[in-house]
Amino acid sequence: MTGPTDFLVPGSNVKIDGKPDGSLAGLTFVVKDLFDVAGHPTGAGNHDWARTHPVPERHAWAVQTLLDAGATLIGKSITDEISLGILGENAFDGTPLNPKMPDCVPGGSSSGSASAVAQGFCDFAIGTDTGGSVRVPASFCGLYGIRPTHGRLPLDGMLPQAPTSDTTGWFARDAATFARVSEAMLGETISAAMPTRLVIAADAFGFADAKVRDALAPMVQKLKKLVPCAHIEHMAPQGLSVWARTQRTLQPYEAWMTFKDWIERENPRFAFQVARNLAFASLIPATERGWASLMREEARARLAYLIPDDTILCMPTTPCPAPPKGRSLRELDVVRDRITCLTAQGGLTGHPQLNLAGATVDGAPIGLSIIGSRGADALLVSVAAQMENYA
Amino acid sequence: MTGPTDFLVPGSNVKIDGKPDGSLAGLTFVVKDLFDVAGHPTGAGNHDWARTHPVPERHAWAVQTLLDAGATLIGKSITDEISLGILGENAFDGTPLNPKMPDCVPGGSSSGSASAVAQGFCDFAIGTDTGGSVRVPASFCGLYGIRPTHGRLPLDGMLPQAPTSDTTGWFARDAATFARVSEAMLGETISAAMPTRLVIAADAFGFADAKVRDALAPMVQKLKKLVPCAHIEHMAPQGLSVWARTQRTLQPYEAWMTFKDWIERENPRFAFQVARNLAFASLIPATERGWASLMREEARARLAYLIPDDTILCMPTTPCPAPPKGRSLRELDVVRDRITCLTAQGGLTGHPQLNLAGATVDGAPIGLSIIGSRGADALLVSVAAQMENYA
Repeated sequence: MTGPTDFLVPGSNVKIDGKPDGSLAGLTFVVKDLFDVAGHPTGAGNHDWARTHPVPERHAWAVQTLLDAGATLIGKSITDEISLGILGENAFDGTPLNPKMPDCVPGGSSSGSASAVAQGFCDFAIGTDTGGSVRVPASFCGLYGIRPTHGRLPLDGMLPQAPTSDTTGWFARDAATFARVSEAMLGETISAAMPTRLVIAADAFGFADAKVRDALAPMVQKLKKLVPCAHIEHMAPQGLSVWARTQRTLQPYEAWMTFKDWIERENPRFAFQVARNLAFASLIPATERGWASLMREEARARLAYLIPDDTILCMPTTPCPAPPKGRSLRELDVVRDRITCLTAQGGLTGHPQLNLAGATVDGAPIGLSIIGSRGADALLVSVAAQMENYA
Repeated sequence: MTGPTDFLVPGSNVKIDGKPDGSLAGLTFVVKDLFDVAGHPTGAGNHDWARTHPVPERHAWAVQTLLDAGATLIGKSITDEISLGILGENAFDGTPLNPKMPDCVPGGSSSGSASAVAQGFCDFAIGTDTGGSVRVPASFCGLYGIRPTHGRLPLDGMLPQAPTSDTTGWFARDAATFARVSEAMLGETISAAMPTRLVIAADAFGFADAKVRDALAPMVQKLKKLVPCAHIEHMAPQGLSVWARTQRTLQPYEAWMTFKDWIERENPRFAFQVARNLAFASLIPATERGWASLMREEARARLAYLIPDDTILCMPTTPCPAPPKGRSLRELDVVRDRITCLTAQGGLTGHPQLNLAGATVDGAPIGLSIIGSRGADALLVSVAAQMENYA
């Protein structure tokens, strides 16, 4: 690649060869700047973070795992500030290019990871997903991307945000590469296993833009051909907006708990939108959090019922393609809240979710998500591979 | 001066000679980075402000007035971000030295102006005072400083914050220089006129630290000798904390109104404390603002009653000397709220208030304030001169 590398953390210069002869030998990757790389600062997309934290002395689990598997690390990629954001605009490090839609956001918070893969700089990339940070940029940039089962992979050396929702995910352009990386990360062979039942989430499709529904229809048809039995059901009987509200109650408060000691001590600089969300999070009352915990239990029970081990659910990853860059806070707040209605189930329930690339709306990528039972990560990867191979 | 110039805006380089033969010929000054100087960016203590605003083409009224009077401008001085702060710590431009207390804050938001004068870099300096931004650094750095009658001086070319409270003020080390600058700024001769009646604000002295009361006692004694008749009365029968709450309701909401379009459009970076205060300000309900407007009327009526034209009131400018630098937000919030109990009357009532230098607590400067009737700015300056001359 000879083009711009606006997805790399400015001033960072990281290259670490993978072990020879591993399963990922020959593949290159970048890692979101929330993961420790020994000897390099973890910047977290906020210049006061690196300034107030020591340079890590060991690699994060994900980095070490991939190096051990033979992949070569070739950069640290831009993230929304301390992973708070799903659109990918960063006032400190800049906004990575969405190569398919240069005037639009790349999606975040794993913005640089998605951009680097989409621009062909590397074969795959590592990100994090707490409230949508892999799924949204995967949808906006037209990539395969997974949020694995919550709690499945070690998060050592990854900067936490909201621990009950935090996961490590990854991106690739094609299903074959995605399967190779998934095997290394999951420690599990990707077989040709397929689910026997498909749930089509009527409420999620109904909530998305009509153009998104139309764009995803051929992929849904393909899925229906691959999976013997299909049902149309509502994913969130209590309301997608109620699930979103639940996540927007629990996750920001957890994030406030994660960062408040640092904030109280250092008074760090943030873009207004990030600081405002943290400030408002600090005001969320215990009564609201109590209700949200109960609703989270209901959401978990719902997905456990709806998605047993032989089943996958499909839905639009995002209700719309990437919005334009540089919009006002008021406009972006509306987009963000609407996206959260389709991403909240990930953080709430911990089920694995994979974004399938392949559809576009007026040239803008839009992803179809498949969600499996807890632990069925490999099954989702298998479906992705068979979707891509299926003529 | 050959020492550090940590009070100047980094990268700024301003020098404009005053007109020859003016009343201020031979005097040098710096101007807070909220005032326009033609051809130089107005930085406002926030790096995203200058980036998103044009370089001014004409001088602010205060700058032009002082240049016309013969003073020479030799720098732009650091301010708290967009004047939001009274302690003087700035995450972008740094914290100017308080030369009397190097480990303590200089006070703000006119931090660099106070520091430059206190360090002897210039003869006087221009600042702004909305909620205490001249009075607090004057108290902490041991300087003469005035918040003039609200509405008396043109504010053209000065970055507004909360228009019903905004004023332009100034600092000097000695009463004679202070009087010269005051004549130029007020356009009024400083006579030897003296008030005939002194009100000692019992509630304000009672609220201050015991050591502050003790330190100010000799200055109060001196005032009592200069002014024939002294009374001890409560300034704020409704409560100093109620007046502070009133100002903390009206001022931040006005500031939010002033800056919200810029913030919505640019999503600028702020230190967390500043962004949080703006975010919380946006939540202040109309019912609270309605009550606060009524209480402001009561405060105005109270000071109009208590301080007729022949009278001055005295009180501690701040309840404590400068607190240490680098404290946590939680600690600083307590200090800031406590200071506001003794500064709120300025922004609420618009009466002129002058900080008299001269007292210390364990080596730390602490100021005695005198407050006059609306328009009695020159009388306060006259009292300052006679206090300094009085053996």
